[in-house]
Amino acid sequence: MNALSPLLVELFDIAAPATAMDASLTHAIDIKTKPPGSLGALERVAHQVGRIQQSATPDLARPAMIVFAGDHGIVAAGVSPYPQAVTAQMVHNFLRGGAAINVFCRAHGIELEVVNAGVAADFSSQAPHASLVDIPVARGTQNFLDAPAMTREQLETALAAGAARVVAHASRGTRMIGFGEMGIGNTSSAACLMQRLTGLPLAACVGRGTGVDDAGLARKTVTLERALAAHPHASNAMPDPLETLATFGGFEIAMMTGAYLAAAKSGLVIVVDGFISTSALLVAARVSPAVLDYCVFAHASDETGHRAMFDILGATPLLQLGLRLGEGTGAALAMPLIQAAAAFLREMATFEGAGVSEREATGQ
Amino acid sequence: MNALSPLLVELFDIAAPATAMDASLTHAIDIKTKPPGSLGALERVAHQVGRIQQSATPDLARPAMIVFAGDHGIVAAGVSPYPQAVTAQMVHNFLRGGAAINVFCRAHGIELEVVNAGVAADFSSQAPHASLVDIPVARGTQNFLDAPAMTREQLETALAAGAARVVAHASRGTRMIGFGEMGIGNTSSAACLMQRLTGLPLAACVGRGTGVDDAGLARKTVTLERALAAHPHASNAMPDPLETLATFGGFEIAMMTGAYLAAAKSGLVIVVDGFISTSALLVAARVSPAVLDYCVFAHASDETGHRAMFDILGATPLLQLGLRLGEGTGAALAMPLIQAAAAFLREMATFEGAGVSEREATGQ
Repeated sequence: MNALSPLLVELFDIAAPATAMDASLTHAIDIKTKPPGSLGALERVAHQVGRIQQSATPDLARPAMIVFAGDHGIVAAGVSPYPQAVTAQMVHNFLRGGAAINVFCRAHGIELEVVNAGVAADFSSQAPHASLVDIPVARGTQNFLDAPAMTREQLETALAAGAARVVAHASRGTRMIGFGEMGIGNTSSAACLMQRLTGLPLAACVGRGTGVDDAGLARKTVTLERALAAHPHASNAMPDPLETLATFGGFEIAMMTGAYLAAAKSGLVIVVDGFISTSALLVAARVSPAVLDYCVFAHASDETGHRAMFDILGATPLLQLGLRLGEGTGAALAMPLIQAAAAFLREMATFEGAGVSEREATGQ
Repeated sequence: MNALSPLLVELFDIAAPATAMDASLTHAIDIKTKPPGSLGALERVAHQVGRIQQSATPDLARPAMIVFAGDHGIVAAGVSPYPQAVTAQMVHNFLRGGAAINVFCRAHGIELEVVNAGVAADFSSQAPHASLVDIPVARGTQNFLDAPAMTREQLETALAAGAARVVAHASRGTRMIGFGEMGIGNTSSAACLMQRLTGLPLAACVGRGTGVDDAGLARKTVTLERALAAHPHASNAMPDPLETLATFGGFEIAMMTGAYLAAAKSGLVIVVDGFISTSALLVAARVSPAVLDYCVFAHASDETGHRAMFDILGATPLLQLGLRLGEGTGAALAMPLIQAAAAFLREMATFEGAGVSEREATGQ
């Protein structure tokens, strides 16, 4: 692929958080009034959040969720049981507050923003709407059976736009952010991204999405096999992550990729949602591996391939609830746990401070 | 065991929630704007909450957490690495707001009450404290190696007191409640209750509690084997749950047992915490099996025996975070998920209402 624009070169230059505080964070966690290790996975999350913020009193202020929506040319090949119009209909549902992600964000005090990354519909008459950011790259991607989903220029536009949305939230005080998506057909994009970037067999990457049956799953797999064959890559070279992203789309995944990178660069705690969100992270991590140090993995979804992605990313999800909805719902559900992890590190008393006896040195 | 007092007879008479609404609740969940089943375990919880409240718009107002604290005579046998004084020290920590359960209740908007059910210390100089209910049955139980942990009269006092605390919260509008505990040595009580009531091998019921090492675990197991042998029961009869509870204690577990029963009788959604809390539920369920219909199981703890209890109770926990702290912390962490489940049933739009197309009937 061609050289990146200077803006993206800067965006992609992410430093891992410093590890100099690691020992003191471990100590701060261990002297809290609880048996050592007894808060399980929350102790790991607290340590990570403390390291990201370089603080033993971390604060995850103004949690935010950005839902990126886009349409996919590949739906013409019949990969989803839902019509493409559902993407636009669901964006309207988001704007009226009726979708699952609205409910969960209201319940948990999370700022929700909806970004039209490239839906096959016109939302200009909706603007200005408080929670809609109407910045479509185009009205849906190309069908990647026939052509790359997007051009190089569209890809860079999407990456920069996703990054800009994160910077806007960070400037308002957000310290924890999650990304969701809506796009009929986008498990097909995600499956192709996953296959190309990991080299796993396609069957390990393709799932039922919103709910195709056995026949639909077989057809979806055959279709995506054809798509991958239509865009071969040199077998002796690692596939270029950005070229792969441009090839298989979609706009919402590309904006989310830029958003991950900007969030890491801004030092935010990133809450990773489901299969599609994790496919965008696969791309981001190939560009700048340090992005992973900023990520808390919300949940293991029921979509085929999600757990294999975790193995590749070395990730341990917080929740296993059998979710397979997308929209950022799993990330929104995990945010209270992450807030609780930060809060215990920030607020719990120590054995010494509270006058609580530690364990006796009797070998018991 | 002797006949129950009329108060307890009434308390133990719990009706299962009506099932007449079940089909309409399933329908209400299925017509929400999401692929069917895509909210996974939250759909199951939403259905249960809807059934308990007999409403498709359930409301879990004023979530509350009661932490019952008590001391255990068995600690004289060296079953815990922490000294008995830690129970009282932790109660003071609760009252100052420095423990994990304080932090989590603050983070998630949960009303917290601390009940002195029978700590080996005097809290009368602390009262009146806004969050302390100082109603000790005695200053710790008897060592159940030598005698029953409590008398029949003490047991009934504890059951009624626990029930009364729940009724107090229900009268203030609480619709969801969790119970936590603090009591050095109480995994020993819980292990004996579990062994006697389930008949499982003691080794499957005894765990490391706050963190005994291998030698400590072996000593704890030998000690509890002796304790069980000291209180034999007729092998051809089911053990009496209340007699078993009186034998092995503790006061905090007995109050919690009464609290479970009262919460079910009051139609509250009950959030079940860890190993000790679940041992109290084992007793309650033997008295009145319908109590289980009101229970959402918060988490699978790392304490040996907890998962075996789930198998016996037919329970599926929401979280698997490797927690082993008690205090109600797992229940407090699960409450936002349960709130989210109720909220999606109450607030999400339907396909028809939102003008969103359903899946096409093409066999895809």
